[in-house]
Amino acid sequence: MEINIQEAVLYSRDKNSVFISDLKEFLRIKSISTDSSYSSEMLRASNWIVDYIKTMKQSDAYLLETLKYPVVYGEISNQDNDKPTVLIYGHYDVQPPDPVDLWRNDPFDPFVENGSLFARGASDMKGQLMVVLAAIKSIQAIDEMPINIKFIVEGEEEIGSPNIKSFLEGNKDLFRSDFILNLDAGMISREKPTIVYGLRGLAYFELEITGPGQDLHSGMFGGVVYNPIQALSEVIAGMKDHYGKIQLPGFYDDVLPLLDNEKQALQQLGMDEDFYLSQTGAKKIWGEKGFSPVECVGARPTLDVNGINGGYTGEGPKTVIPAKAYAKLSMRLVPNQTPDKVHEQLRKYLEENVPDQVNWSLKKLASDPASLSDINFYATQCFAKSIEETWGVPPVYQRGGGSIPIVSHFQEILNLESVLSGFSLPEDNIHSPNEKLDLEIFQKGIETVIHYFYQISKSCER
Amino acid sequence: MEINIQEAVLYSRDKNSVFISDLKEFLRIKSISTDSSYSSEMLRASNWIVDYIKTMKQSDAYLLETLKYPVVYGEISNQDNDKPTVLIYGHYDVQPPDPVDLWRNDPFDPFVENGSLFARGASDMKGQLMVVLAAIKSIQAIDEMPINIKFIVEGEEEIGSPNIKSFLEGNKDLFRSDFILNLDAGMISREKPTIVYGLRGLAYFELEITGPGQDLHSGMFGGVVYNPIQALSEVIAGMKDHYGKIQLPGFYDDVLPLLDNEKQALQQLGMDEDFYLSQTGAKKIWGEKGFSPVECVGARPTLDVNGINGGYTGEGPKTVIPAKAYAKLSMRLVPNQTPDKVHEQLRKYLEENVPDQVNWSLKKLASDPASLSDINFYATQCFAKSIEETWGVPPVYQRGGGSIPIVSHFQEILNLESVLSGFSLPEDNIHSPNEKLDLEIFQKGIETVIHYFYQISKSCER
Repeated sequence: MEINIQEAVLYSRDKNSVFISDLKEFLRIKSISTDSSYSSEMLRASNWIVDYIKTMKQSDAYLLETLKYPVVYGEISNQDNDKPTVLIYGHYDVQPPDPVDLWRNDPFDPFVENGSLFARGASDMKGQLMVVLAAIKSIQAIDEMPINIKFIVEGEEEIGSPNIKSFLEGNKDLFRSDFILNLDAGMISREKPTIVYGLRGLAYFELEITGPGQDLHSGMFGGVVYNPIQALSEVIAGMKDHYGKIQLPGFYDDVLPLLDNEKQALQQLGMDEDFYLSQTGAKKIWGEKGFSPVECVGARPTLDVNGINGGYTGEGPKTVIPAKAYAKLSMRLVPNQTPDKVHEQLRKYLEENVPDQVNWSLKKLASDPASLSDINFYATQCFAKSIEETWGVPPVYQRGGGSIPIVSHFQEILNLESVLSGFSLPEDNIHSPNEKLDLEIFQKGIETVIHYFYQISKSCER
Repeated sequence: MEINIQEAVLYSRDKNSVFISDLKEFLRIKSISTDSSYSSEMLRASNWIVDYIKTMKQSDAYLLETLKYPVVYGEISNQDNDKPTVLIYGHYDVQPPDPVDLWRNDPFDPFVENGSLFARGASDMKGQLMVVLAAIKSIQAIDEMPINIKFIVEGEEEIGSPNIKSFLEGNKDLFRSDFILNLDAGMISREKPTIVYGLRGLAYFELEITGPGQDLHSGMFGGVVYNPIQALSEVIAGMKDHYGKIQLPGFYDDVLPLLDNEKQALQQLGMDEDFYLSQTGAKKIWGEKGFSPVECVGARPTLDVNGINGGYTGEGPKTVIPAKAYAKLSMRLVPNQTPDKVHEQLRKYLEENVPDQVNWSLKKLASDPASLSDINFYATQCFAKSIEETWGVPPVYQRGGGSIPIVSHFQEILNLESVLSGFSLPEDNIHSPNEKLDLEIFQKGIETVIHYFYQISKSCER
């Protein structure tokens, strides 16, 4: 079997340009889930995966409807029913490319430069899906698949997966398997393959403040009405104190203090102030007082304004007092905090702090709990072993700053643990202009997964 | 001569629908000066006025180039050189119609309903220009013009007239006249024709705050960078205290206290809290502590955020920390304050208050001093008399909240005083969606101006 692994790895290297070309085709589809005008592209992307899986041996694949965008179901069967079944999670939707003018090329016309493939979704996560698909194709070129594979590829990850819970509830049997492999997390640097064992949750809201009945002339009415942008700015400003502490009432009540060994583990990641300076391009690093940068990102809850808009924002001056202004606000949550409780805390803060002269309304746009998983889970340890075989170093274990809510849904609804890793780099600009995929890392990812599927089939305890 | 006035008034009533139809043609031209993509429409609008003036007897009209949009020069000569010359000021540009979705009809497809003509520019100020043009046409239908008329109609009023000063400097002789009639101010209610004797100045800026080198994923970097929207919100929030006092250092130093007789005059306008509630549709009226609403608008300086933008503002959630955010800020100034000094005060405030972790830049978009004029000026008293003859009541005298910077430019450069009035109503939604012109007021305006031109020619002391 070791010979087969080697041959599959060599095959994957040989066919690397074919896999990149297939990926480019996938990346050309503008599957932006947050903007409903792209719904036909969403359908094209889901069908693209179905068709791609169907080109494999002993496979089947089809779409399953949800209230919004379909989920791709797929399977590749081993002859031997005794072999474990790995459920591959992925999403075919991508973030919108805005601001488009900061891209050096068309975000949906993939382009290779300096060993990286630039396109929206290259790393997050069409490229990660291709890692698995390429690994399977490479194995099947030489051998039978050593395990069973199922796929669940959704189209609503970037909008907070609003329909996935009810979808999973209704399809428990179909997705029966041993565990999940989810490559939607990333590496902390190109030398450090990473397994993520903790994720922050997410609570995302849109806050609208309305003042006058309509836009007003600031000369005729400036001085007698409370400007909604002013009110919104005051509300946002009050949400944090000068030390970065979030001021929502009770926000930190459920936050568990960091244990010493957790602090140490975080410190060993080597993600210091210089790392964050170079990654962000910010003038200075800032964060909650009393915590190191990596603690702020990995283990502390945060609050960010993701967007704001109101009044006249075009060219030149316009002397208007706008009727309304709105902001998109989100909190990253740590284990033990719940989105519902944070929602209440935000409501209470707004009740107490929005000026009396204006009205406000709050809309929940996404809501997911944080999660922590067991590093010693057999499938996770198998993945660690495959990493070591491929990269020559063991993985680092990270508590990540992002949210992958599907991990807790899989735990709760399907009773399945997730192995969470991935082959995107911090400098790959996911969710930003000029998103890219490092093609050397991509190839190493394929090889890691080839190793992994064999590892799972033979040596790891179940 | 009284008979001629009556006949001209009757003629104007008879031809009212023709003048409205001419105005509609003018309103269909999208002369939005703030957006350079409308520059061909700007040229159409300026030529429309030239052509319209040329249809009059003993007239001439042509365009004069400026650095951006041309100024319309026009004249209508009386045979007798001894007669006074009134310089009619106007502007052919309009505000952008945004937000367009709040209009009940196309802002550039004029539409009559309930006695009002709805369109962008209907009141501000294409309709006001038409008042004068219709008055002249009505007089010329029966009589020779009793005075000389000159026109100066600019295309950059809504963007702060950046080129008008140098233009006036270069054309002093051409515009030699006795005084200015400027109908770009409005009435305080439909029963109260109004003469404006004081105007606030304007200082308008765009403030941009930049943080990280590019948009970042809020999960990967939320907690370690200062979010530019947060910083901008804090800066805006800090500009006013809870009592509505503006916090720029030294902002009130040059503001003269209101005299008792000024307070009384303002109070007599009857613009109380209920008036402003009904005009604005706001939940509550708010303003600087210690001052009544009409004092806040007419005689106190104010600060408003006219627009704000940053991050993702489309549909749904996007978990981004934006690289930048910007706001449009403007201050209405009272006599004795200068835009340059306020600019310095704002710079100083920003130097002291923008967080160290972000960068900021400030761009001046418009800058005009406040003005006060003499109520007893003969041409103003003539206008008051014409109002009384037409409306049956004397005018109210108002210190207005808006800025008409051309008034002080005419004083400084041409040494000419302005008579400042107009026939728009507070409920005419100027600068807002569904701008309109009350057609009954429009007709009374025409009649007032017919009376005025005869008044000026005969009975008023020069």
